Amino acid sequence: MVILGIDPGYATIGYGVIEKRTNGLVPIDYGVVTTPKTEGLPVRLAMIDEQITALIKKYKPDSIAVEELFFNTNITTGIKVAQARGVIMVCAVKECGKLYEYTPLQIKQALTGNGRAEKAQIQFMVRALLGLKETPKPDDAADALAAAICHANTNSYSQRIME
Amino acid sequence: MVILGIDPGYATIGYGVIEKRTNGLVPIDYGVVTTPKTEGLPVRLAMIDEQITALIKKYKPDSIAVEELFFNTNITTGIKVAQARGVIMVCAVKECGKLYEYTPLQIKQALTGNGRAEKAQIQFMVRALLGLKETPKPDDAADALAAAICHANTNSYSQRIME
Repeated sequence: MVILGIDPGYATIGYGVIEKRTNGLVPIDYGVVTTPKTEGLPVRLAMIDEQITALIKKYKPDSIAVEELFFNTNITTGIKVAQARGVIMVCAVKECGKLYEYTPLQIKQALTGNGRAEKAQIQFMVRALLGLKETPKPDDAADALAAAICHANTNSYSQRIME
Repeated sequence: MVILGIDPGYATIGYGVIEKRTNGLVPIDYGVVTTPKTEGLPVRLAMIDEQITALIKKYKPDSIAVEELFFNTNITTGIKVAQARGVIMVCAVKECGKLYEYTPLQIKQALTGNGRAEKAQIQFMVRALLGLKETPKPDDAADALAAAICHANTNSYSQRIME
């Protein structure tokens, strides 16, 4: 089963593709999709639509795991990220159909057993669970892989909360 | 020049189509696109994508005016509306290309000369400027028509702030 994890954003969107095999999880690819600061938000959103659609077509995931938004104090950034997340969700529904959402807490819980784990712990577990020699960079890619791993490890639960 | 105004939302999206002629503004159509509460947000977003795309294909507007988000106290609703707005913006960029954004203050200012005008004043002006016998209902449709009228009346200004 191929799983695509996505860490939403409008400037940088992390993605991570893993395969769940009977003997464990295998990393397929990870990285980031970026949009240029020089463009206005509408054009950047259209670029996200195009690039995420291309990613899904390339890896043909069986399911897609998208991180839920966590709003910190910056509401202006939050609104932009939310608009980008909407675009990403439509790509996922249209191109794949099997879309799952996980909160940061659920992802941390699934990877470390602690919903309040630090970023470094998550990165350590991503690296360990996928047998990678180094921590995936940038952080957005590691976060996307974490979402994918969370889905792989909590599949039966997530199906019950699927929207 | 045909203008499509859109009032973003995820449960109800208002739309209003007007034509700017040398002798004034003419209403073409207005109404709402809705999504069912019974569906999850990802599916509702995909429905919005489909319906807004169909509207743009039907009316072939020369430009599209979308209201900027105004966040009140309900952040949960705000995040959902923002995700829907991102989807609407991508439809506009892909199907039309000429997308303009106006804040509620700009729309009120353009219609009444007062950025703090009450909703009833806006609705009165929408009705008067389009020569309608009754106030367009629901409010979302009236708001969408107001965005379209704002664009028609402040075109030269808005082109400078286009993203």
